[in-house]
Amino acid sequence: MTEFIPPGTRFHALPSPFPMKRGGELRDARIAYETWGELNRARDNAVLIVTGLSPDAHAAANAGNAEPGWWEAMLGPGKPIDTDRWFVVCVNSLGSCKGSTGPASVDPSTGKPYRLDFPELSIEDGADAAHEVVRGMGIERLACLIGNSMGGMTALAYLLRHPGSARTHINISGSAHALPFSIAIRSLQREAIRLDPNWNNGDYDEATYPESGMRMARKLGVITYRSALEWDGRFGRVRLESDRPDEEPFGLEFQVESYLEGHARRFVRRFDPNCYLYLSRSMDWFDLAEHADGKQADGDVLQGLARIRVDKALAIGASTDILFPLQQQQQIADGLRAGGAEAEFLPLESPQGHDAFLVDIERFGPVVADFLAGI
Amino acid sequence: MTEFIPPGTRFHALPSPFPMKRGGELRDARIAYETWGELNRARDNAVLIVTGLSPDAHAAANAGNAEPGWWEAMLGPGKPIDTDRWFVVCVNSLGSCKGSTGPASVDPSTGKPYRLDFPELSIEDGADAAHEVVRGMGIERLACLIGNSMGGMTALAYLLRHPGSARTHINISGSAHALPFSIAIRSLQREAIRLDPNWNNGDYDEATYPESGMRMARKLGVITYRSALEWDGRFGRVRLESDRPDEEPFGLEFQVESYLEGHARRFVRRFDPNCYLYLSRSMDWFDLAEHADGKQADGDVLQGLARIRVDKALAIGASTDILFPLQQQQQIADGLRAGGAEAEFLPLESPQGHDAFLVDIERFGPVVADFLAGI
Repeated sequence: MTEFIPPGTRFHALPSPFPMKRGGELRDARIAYETWGELNRARDNAVLIVTGLSPDAHAAANAGNAEPGWWEAMLGPGKPIDTDRWFVVCVNSLGSCKGSTGPASVDPSTGKPYRLDFPELSIEDGADAAHEVVRGMGIERLACLIGNSMGGMTALAYLLRHPGSARTHINISGSAHALPFSIAIRSLQREAIRLDPNWNNGDYDEATYPESGMRMARKLGVITYRSALEWDGRFGRVRLESDRPDEEPFGLEFQVESYLEGHARRFVRRFDPNCYLYLSRSMDWFDLAEHADGKQADGDVLQGLARIRVDKALAIGASTDILFPLQQQQQIADGLRAGGAEAEFLPLESPQGHDAFLVDIERFGPVVADFLAGI
Repeated sequence: MTEFIPPGTRFHALPSPFPMKRGGELRDARIAYETWGELNRARDNAVLIVTGLSPDAHAAANAGNAEPGWWEAMLGPGKPIDTDRWFVVCVNSLGSCKGSTGPASVDPSTGKPYRLDFPELSIEDGADAAHEVVRGMGIERLACLIGNSMGGMTALAYLLRHPGSARTHINISGSAHALPFSIAIRSLQREAIRLDPNWNNGDYDEATYPESGMRMARKLGVITYRSALEWDGRFGRVRLESDRPDEEPFGLEFQVESYLEGHARRFVRRFDPNCYLYLSRSMDWFDLAEHADGKQADGDVLQGLARIRVDKALAIGASTDILFPLQQQQQIADGLRAGGAEAEFLPLESPQGHDAFLVDIERFGPVVADFLAGI
């Protein structure tokens, strides 16, 4: 399958072999990244952003790519993550298809795409790979590590596996382990892809891309990324215009259905289905309790978190998030505090659900700006 | 397609032709029903139950069928709906496949199943059909009309279209119109069925039943019928036993996935996909605002509700219901009160989501019993 790499993307070669947490290793693997601002002489003004499942490394416009990025309002000169002060790095996750090595990449040992021969992917592998990029820049210690959504998991794994690697941390709509509602949603998304005959156990090409499965997965994603409250006000029961009737039996009729359809159209064929499956499963597997002094039992998440050492941390999320609910950000703050950090939990009354950090900059921007101003 | 009719089911022939709200009519149609208790001489002790999307008329064991029903704990001698006092009728919804006429039934004009030639189905049609069953028993006025979930919609349509037909009303986890989150979920369930090649525009048989689509639809249903809170305690991150590994790539691994799988297995091939599509869409279409003095605009739901005349009403629901959220039951109580009813809204702190009325009898039972005791 094709990869989807924005212009201006830069690459960092990972050590080869690069060992994977659950076994196996990658050879000649790479991580895609972009940067904003200047690294100062002391190399102590670096901020790393680790992302959710689908974004690339192009968080905002920069010299290499003037197109707006997925966090354009948050990142730039004078913006909440102020690139006049900070040297900001954003990495594309290991396992993705936006430039970093993943199941859609060519396996150097065969000359063909990995597909399902890619080794099992863990959140921890993504964290280790991101850490390699930062170390490759000669940065010993980040000023701040920022993780959103899945990136909130990646950031916690990064901090735990690489002690002393960051002074501060902002965890945005993240979690220290996956809970059953989120697992159920992601399991269903994966099942939709697996049930699509075109998926064919991962062996598809552009002509046989499993479009139906990816449409379903994306629509279910969007439903859980936003909130019922927002949609009541935004769509209500408004119908599609009558000059665009959907003649299919049981076809689209309401605006909310058309909104989901638009999201699905913009996503399918722009993301590799195997990469989606690998990244999705890595979130289900993630459990910081595994790192709680060798114990793996449930309920040790706080112990796992308490093993992390940062000076200062902020955990924020949206009150309407059903996928990474607020109590998970509260848990992160509690656990980091138990580990000695000055950690704050700030629940934000945003109507925009899990995706609020991408769109509700009015609420998320000042909180991030204030935290960074204070370090 | 096969229909699925419990033993002991009784049938009421609808007037022929039976006109449908959105156009068309049914000939020789029937409604399946069951009864419990005895109708008194004054014929004033009748309680009618209208159901959610999937149940049949067998709400509890009775003389015709000793098997436990879907509301066994709620209905019977000495139970919250006490059949020593009340004559209880439960109808299978028009459009279903559990005995009442629906898309899986034979069209008398062709001798073949209706499939997609069944006329467009509205909640109001189901209400009119249920009203015919009650009138056919010589009951002019119900002591109480009880509607659950979709049945909560049916009950409101019944009361509005048949003034004076019930003294009191209990609306359980119902709503006066569908909101966009619920529409989105149901739209995705229908899309899963429509995308299954076996659905074939409604033209399948037992050998080509669209099992994949129905599995997806059911799993998504179960996810939205329960609550994240309940699942945290019930499943946590517990894995399946290691002696039952799922060897499929990205196969089941967590207990919550196996739970969904079990629900799907018990549902597919026991419900007709076309009936599912028709009933699902009827919920999306339902909007009591249409009945607000001829106006059809959004926001007139309260006016529609205020046109209903009952003496006393109770609207209850679960705090964790994401499909028919509590504010919808509050709206029902507010609207009925504006219409002159003594109407109470009782939010119940149940962890079990939309399905709580089926399983959390500890909370729902006493409230229903108290209301019925007071009339």
